[in-house]
Amino acid sequence: MTYAMLDANQLDDLISDGQLGAAATALSALPAGDIAALLDRLSHQARGVAFRLLPKDLAVEVFDDLSAGSQRRLIDDLGTAEVVAAFDHLDPDDRAELLDELPAGVARALIQQLTPAERDVTAVVLGYPRGSVGRRMSPEFVHARRDETAGAALTRVKDRGHAAETIYTVPVLDVARSLCGVVSLRDLLLAEPDEPIADLMSRPMFAHADDDAEATAQRCVDRGILAMPVVDRDNRLVGVLTIDDAVEVVEQARDTDEARAGAREPLREPYLHASILSITRARIVWLFVLAVSAILTVNVLEIFEGTLEQKVALALFIPLLTGIGGNTGSQAATTVTRALATDDVTTRDVVRVAAKEVRVGLTMGSLLGVVGFAVAALVYGVDIGGVIGLTIVSICTMAATVGGVMPLVAKSIRVDPAVFSTPFISTFCDATGLIVYFSIAKAVLGI
Amino acid sequence: MTYAMLDANQLDDLISDGQLGAAATALSALPAGDIAALLDRLSHQARGVAFRLLPKDLAVEVFDDLSAGSQRRLIDDLGTAEVVAAFDHLDPDDRAELLDELPAGVARALIQQLTPAERDVTAVVLGYPRGSVGRRMSPEFVHARRDETAGAALTRVKDRGHAAETIYTVPVLDVARSLCGVVSLRDLLLAEPDEPIADLMSRPMFAHADDDAEATAQRCVDRGILAMPVVDRDNRLVGVLTIDDAVEVVEQARDTDEARAGAREPLREPYLHASILSITRARIVWLFVLAVSAILTVNVLEIFEGTLEQKVALALFIPLLTGIGGNTGSQAATTVTRALATDDVTTRDVVRVAAKEVRVGLTMGSLLGVVGFAVAALVYGVDIGGVIGLTIVSICTMAATVGGVMPLVAKSIRVDPAVFSTPFISTFCDATGLIVYFSIAKAVLGI
Repeated sequence: MTYAMLDANQLDDLISDGQLGAAATALSALPAGDIAALLDRLSHQARGVAFRLLPKDLAVEVFDDLSAGSQRRLIDDLGTAEVVAAFDHLDPDDRAELLDELPAGVARALIQQLTPAERDVTAVVLGYPRGSVGRRMSPEFVHARRDETAGAALTRVKDRGHAAETIYTVPVLDVARSLCGVVSLRDLLLAEPDEPIADLMSRPMFAHADDDAEATAQRCVDRGILAMPVVDRDNRLVGVLTIDDAVEVVEQARDTDEARAGAREPLREPYLHASILSITRARIVWLFVLAVSAILTVNVLEIFEGTLEQKVALALFIPLLTGIGGNTGSQAATTVTRALATDDVTTRDVVRVAAKEVRVGLTMGSLLGVVGFAVAALVYGVDIGGVIGLTIVSICTMAATVGGVMPLVAKSIRVDPAVFSTPFISTFCDATGLIVYFSIAKAVLGI
Repeated sequence: MTYAMLDANQLDDLISDGQLGAAATALSALPAGDIAALLDRLSHQARGVAFRLLPKDLAVEVFDDLSAGSQRRLIDDLGTAEVVAAFDHLDPDDRAELLDELPAGVARALIQQLTPAERDVTAVVLGYPRGSVGRRMSPEFVHARRDETAGAALTRVKDRGHAAETIYTVPVLDVARSLCGVVSLRDLLLAEPDEPIADLMSRPMFAHADDDAEATAQRCVDRGILAMPVVDRDNRLVGVLTIDDAVEVVEQARDTDEARAGAREPLREPYLHASILSITRARIVWLFVLAVSAILTVNVLEIFEGTLEQKVALALFIPLLTGIGGNTGSQAATTVTRALATDDVTTRDVVRVAAKEVRVGLTMGSLLGVVGFAVAALVYGVDIGGVIGLTIVSICTMAATVGGVMPLVAKSIRVDPAVFSTPFISTFCDATGLIVYFSIAKAVLGI
């Protein structure tokens, strides 16, 4: 058995050493999925070479399994004939995703050479807005009829199965051709041939073609549904969303959330092969915007420069306090952002979230504040200790509340919650935290 | 069609208003998967009530779809009879997961009442270490023999299909009963009955039972494999990892990474129903540890208190500079942590990563440094401008490098990279950044 017999770096070396024969042998010993995964991790040049080393029919299979990004980059350096062959072999939904990646000219050229039938199913998918379920579903499915028997349905599955993306979940249609249930191929196969579909089918979990792809995919994944029927506004079946496509949608969405919680955009290629330029591009804008908004903290401190001059010791605690604020804020922000993604929280819950975070922040602030007071009082005297303790309580409460509410605000004004969460909240908490800190200091120390 | 006809809050209200009849009707109109999703979001008390409202056979199905956490909480307030019924119905891998959740006593009691056969398959799964593929695989599968025909294999699938967790991917065994391929039910069904399996089967992507569950699940998900055969050290088939279980493993792992990048532990229940106490518990330890390590920054500033007293203006830039360092560090850390999770980077790449991040940090630092110099020079004079510019360059380079390398170090000493990433890096960058800042200041300003 062969998996992991060859890793991306070894393959890269083989190719750069010009040992193409060895590379070809090693590659053809792997299953298509593993080859695709390897190619996804290769450098641009090596990917082109490796792909050409594959026997033709294996090549189309592998192309199928590549990420849309790699497909696009690969197309740049493949001959038209190779591209056409690979493109024909794709499922309509993968084809639509790739077309989104390609320059309009190339896309048109590719669509032109499809058979009319293939062009139609692709057009169905392309007809729905980006980010909708319609764009990610497969319009090629086999259905069963409510009024037929398991045997009849099974025969149709066998006849039409070749074209369908999946045959393991069979949507059931009533006389009006609208979705009334699903039956698993398993039940079809294990049932008596004369058993009526109506008895075998179960209530379907389904989606509308213009539903949000991310939310639907998450539902599909959470419940481990192999294929979710997709219907149009009149409840007529238009396609199925298969779990592997759903997983892809969910993973892409989480990559973006994760990246933005880390103040960057997701990389579109494997880290080690991403150029310094593209990595910088994915980060610099965020860093710049955050730095600019952080100038706010400089202005705040200027206001209190007098206070600082009278008691320089106050400066010692600035990073500690802003750090606590930033961490508390990002704890709340990431929690709520995640809860939004999993539908545990909706924008309607803003008050409940705020109420929760106020109490959590207050609890944590009190615990931490007491310790802060004790330590600071011992070293710098009771007055400074008091300032620190009080500031920690206020900052924690404020940061948790802001951090919890921000993602909801973002969502309700149709901004990706992740954009607003962590980084902005820490900057915001830094500035407001400093105001709180020095106001308390002035009050307590009577400066 | 009924999905989303009822949301968790409405159900909660119905139950707390004692409108159980209405709740029962609303519930029984939903597919089991939707009911489970609803129950997962209900408060502890409401969940128990809602579950009892379900007809017995629907109830076991729903229990099956619940998260292990909800199952555990549900068991606390169900009668033994109800529990036993639900427990019997679980697949061995789900059963093993639930048993991990339960107190040893309860677990033993539940295992006792299983049929010997059921107990055996559960024991198989429990025999593998936590976090291994063996723990998440299903030991109930149907196989085909290399030397038989499609027809013969299909018959076996029909006979044994009821017990198996999936029949859509059929592992193929040779005479030595070791894995030599897989054939999809689709190909079995669409093939001529007399076609030999040897011609239908394809090279399998498989895993070893003691492989790491997370890495294997990620592979399975990345390639959209419906079921991955699992073999023991002698390459004998012991089970299959189905994609729905793989997705669960991957999502749990990402929840943990995401949570820790946000300086907290993942919540084990829906946010809105998590108690203030449990939310606080998930955050306070992190916050406390970070706060304590942030005391480092106070000590650093104390060393430079003299410098600060001579030039209080230097204090104004502290939050700005630590902010830039923290953000740069977490950008690099989250990038590399993700690359580790997707196998794009291994601990062996530490030098390549460092080299990359040094250059990225230097690039971003220079861009930002020039702006920083210009702005600061205009407002506070060229000397301060120079200090700020130089400091930004050094901090960005350092933070990016440390942020990129840290996750690899963590991984190589067998610590979850996410633990080390973002929060610790920002604290670390704060302290070192301040040293850099004041050293440069002393040199440039000649204090």
